[in-house]
Amino acid sequence: MAPSVTASPAVTRTRVRAWRARGETVAFVPTMGALHEGHLALARRAKHSADRVVASVFVNPLQFNDARDLKAYPRDLAGDRALLAREGVDLVFAPRAAAFYPKGHATRVTVGGLDRVLEGAHRPGHFTGVATVVSKLLNVVEPDQLWLGQKDAQQVAILTRMIQDLDFAVTVRVAPTVRARDGLALSSRNARLTPAERAQAPALYRALKAGARHRSAGAAERAMRKELARAKLAKVDYAALVDPRTFEKPRPGVRRGLLVVAARFPSARLIDNLKVNL
Amino acid sequence: MAPSVTASPAVTRTRVRAWRARGETVAFVPTMGALHEGHLALARRAKHSADRVVASVFVNPLQFNDARDLKAYPRDLAGDRALLAREGVDLVFAPRAAAFYPKGHATRVTVGGLDRVLEGAHRPGHFTGVATVVSKLLNVVEPDQLWLGQKDAQQVAILTRMIQDLDFAVTVRVAPTVRARDGLALSSRNARLTPAERAQAPALYRALKAGARHRSAGAAERAMRKELARAKLAKVDYAALVDPRTFEKPRPGVRRGLLVVAARFPSARLIDNLKVNL
Repeated sequence: MAPSVTASPAVTRTRVRAWRARGETVAFVPTMGALHEGHLALARRAKHSADRVVASVFVNPLQFNDARDLKAYPRDLAGDRALLAREGVDLVFAPRAAAFYPKGHATRVTVGGLDRVLEGAHRPGHFTGVATVVSKLLNVVEPDQLWLGQKDAQQVAILTRMIQDLDFAVTVRVAPTVRARDGLALSSRNARLTPAERAQAPALYRALKAGARHRSAGAAERAMRKELARAKLAKVDYAALVDPRTFEKPRPGVRRGLLVVAARFPSARLIDNLKVNL
Repeated sequence: MAPSVTASPAVTRTRVRAWRARGETVAFVPTMGALHEGHLALARRAKHSADRVVASVFVNPLQFNDARDLKAYPRDLAGDRALLAREGVDLVFAPRAAAFYPKGHATRVTVGGLDRVLEGAHRPGHFTGVATVVSKLLNVVEPDQLWLGQKDAQQVAILTRMIQDLDFAVTVRVAPTVRARDGLALSSRNARLTPAERAQAPALYRALKAGARHRSAGAAERAMRKELARAKLAKVDYAALVDPRTFEKPRPGVRRGLLVVAARFPSARLIDNLKVNL
C-alpha cells in the first residue's frame, strides 16, 4: 500500500502522535526527493529498526547557496512516493516551501565551527539551512530515530552536534554509503553528469582508497590529490584527513579519522568520504 | 507538597511524558529564579490552564552580555522551590550550567530582525541566548503551553516568532505585568536599586501612562522622555511606540501598538511597556 503523502505539519504530527500513543516507535528519513538506492537503503534500515517510518520529501531552498543548483535539483514526488511504498514507509511529509517558510520567517539554527570548514567553507549558509530545516522537521515529526547517510558525513556531524546541543529527544542513526559498481557514491546530482564526467567521477572513491593505503595524513592527502588529478574534467575543492566529529585536522599522531574529498565537475559538484585507521 | 527539583533533562522528560501519556496537559514556566509575585502570578495562571505545571530555574549565562550582571544576578533555589510549591507547581527543572552547556556546545538559535532593535541593540547577543536556551528547555520539557510575562514584551515577540518559525508544538500564553503599588513593574533586578533609585524607578510606568494620553507616536515619545527626565539618576536607552509583533516603528497613521521604555540606573537597568491605542 502506498504511503499517505501530506503537505500538512499538523496532519503529520497527529498521525505520528497516534502511533506513539499506541507505544509504536517512529523512525524519520529526511530527503530532498529524487530518490536513489542510497535513500531506499536508508528507508529499509529505518523500517527494520522502528515500527513506523516517516520520510520527508522537501527541496529546502534555505540550504542552497547557488540558485541555479536549486533550480536544477530534480523533483518527482509521485515517483518518490512509489519507491518509498516498496520500502514500507508509512507516511511522506512533503511540505510546500511557501507554507514552510512563510513571509516573515526569520529564525536560523547555526552550529558554530563545524559550519565554517570544508563543505561549510565552500557552501556559505548551507549548513545553517540544513540545521534550520531539520529542526523544523524534527519538531513536526517528533521521531525516536533520525536516519542519515554517511555520504554526507559533515552533515551527520553537524546534526549530531545540534541534536545534542539543543536537547532534541531523538537518536541519530547513520547508514553506510551506497555505491555504483565502479565505486561512485550514489547522489541525486550524479544524474546531471555528462557521460564524460560520469566516466571520470569514480576518481573520488579511488582517491579515498588510495589515501587509505598510506600511514600519515600528509601522505594520504598527496595520494588522494594525485588520483583526483587523473579526472581531467574535475577541480578539487578539498582532499583531507579530518576528525569525524569536529571536521578539524586530527591531532598530530592520530591516524583514525575520516578521509574527505570534494570535486567540481562542470555539471555537478561531488563529495565522498571514507573512515580510515591509517 | 513541595515540587520535586531535578537537574536532569532525562528525569524531567520522563516525568512529563508519563503525565502526557495519561492525557494530562502540561504548562511550562521558564524562570531565572529570584522569584517575585510576577513569576508567581504566571505560575498561578499556568496552574489554572493545565493539569500539570513545570517551572525551570536557570540563570542562563548565554543571555547575559554583561559578566557583572550575570554574577550579580540573585540565586536562591530553596526559596524559589518553596514559593513554587505554594502555587501547585509539580516539577522544577534546575539544570547545572556546566552540564546544560558542556564543552564543545556550539549551536545557536537566532531570530533575525527582532533581535537587532531596542533591547537587542542595547544587549548584543542577549536574544540569541534567550532563543537558544528556550529551544533547549522546550525540547526537554515538551510542554503544551509556554507561559511568558508581558513585561518582557520583546522576548515574547521573539519567542513567538521562533516557535512559529521552527514548528515547536507549543502554544505561547502571556500573563500581564504585575506592578508594585507605585506602578513599578516587578523585576528581579529591582532588588539591586538603592533607595534613591527605587524612589525614582516608577518614572518608567508614569512615562508610559503619559505617552498613552497623546494621539501620535511623536507626541507620545516626547511625553515619555519628559516624564523619564524627572528621574535624575536614570539614563534613557529608548522610549518609543512600536509594532508589538515586529518591534519596528508602526506604519504611518497606525496608532495601536506598544509603548516601550528602557532606562539605566547606576545599579540596574529597567524596562517596561504598555499596550496602547492612541
